Amino acid sequence: MKEDLDLGKMSRMLSPRLTVLVTCAREEGRPNIITLSWTMPTSIRPPMVAISVGKRRYSHDVIKESGEFVINVPTKDIESEVWICGTTSGRKLDKFKETNLTAEKPKKVNAPCIRECPINIECKVTGSIESGDHTIFIGKVVALSADSNIHTDGIPNPINGKILYWRNGTKEGDTFYFTK
Amino acid sequence: MKEDLDLGKMSRMLSPRLTVLVTCAREEGRPNIITLSWTMPTSIRPPMVAISVGKRRYSHDVIKESGEFVINVPTKDIESEVWICGTTSGRKLDKFKETNLTAEKPKKVNAPCIRECPINIECKVTGSIESGDHTIFIGKVVALSADSNIHTDGIPNPINGKILYWRNGTKEGDTFYFTK
Repeated sequence: MKEDLDLGKMSRMLSPRLTVLVTCAREEGRPNIITLSWTMPTSIRPPMVAISVGKRRYSHDVIKESGEFVINVPTKDIESEVWICGTTSGRKLDKFKETNLTAEKPKKVNAPCIRECPINIECKVTGSIESGDHTIFIGKVVALSADSNIHTDGIPNPINGKILYWRNGTKEGDTFYFTK
Repeated sequence: MKEDLDLGKMSRMLSPRLTVLVTCAREEGRPNIITLSWTMPTSIRPPMVAISVGKRRYSHDVIKESGEFVINVPTKDIESEVWICGTTSGRKLDKFKETNLTAEKPKKVNAPCIRECPINIECKVTGSIESGDHTIFIGKVVALSADSNIHTDGIPNPINGKILYWRNGTKEGDTFYFTK
């Protein structure tokens, strides 16, 4: 039997969702990390991907001004670091220092990759559009690298990879799920 | 050890992804169903969600012209129907007839909900932007309903719900995963 729900519960009904760490950086100043689950690929040729970032987030203006970002796919091994990056603000905190995550030299952008994440997707912003309290940034993929032990011929293995899926708002608090 | 991958493998590296059935309809003519995993929430207040639809897909022009769509969240119970909706075209086929899925009366839009899907999210398009070979359609949520046995206080239970996650391009063919 179906019942009407408060419209604000929409995002909970589209979960658990694949969770990523997005890095960004102004030309000067420390890079930042934000935890996001509102992402989606948006084009095959050329390869493009979109992320949705809250307008009040520190990373929002950094991505807007720098025109680039990196999507880093984390695993269960750094679950607590993913938590920190999703619950603190880069305005006050150097998240690389706070989490001890390692900035890895990117290939085609200025924002660093995260070494501990087995997948790094470097993107240049080609467009953006406002959507309520968030902005959708569209990124053209300019570099892609992955640990050889997390994929076979470009296909990630969620069993070996222990990829994180985010579900928010349970009674027990926010939780991660994993594919089996 | 990380290695460079062909940029076209980006979407595979952001998977498995939550999979949904999107319904749409012109004022006249039969409604259509398309299987998508390129979706994301994009706003909390007001609740908004984005979907990415290939420009050559039949549903692309139907959504563009009608200005609305419904996101229906399927479960393992209708896995084969989800497969059919993702591998056939509404140009040639009446997918409701082909799959025996049931059109359920929507509350605020013209496009039908799918009865067999425990979650239905009715949306009005408020904006769109091209992204490579796809268009991102942004929808404001105008109605939300869910089976009471798939959620607790608006939080879906992926264990009871047997929610589908899509992973494409394995050697064994495309496959579904499930949260545990």
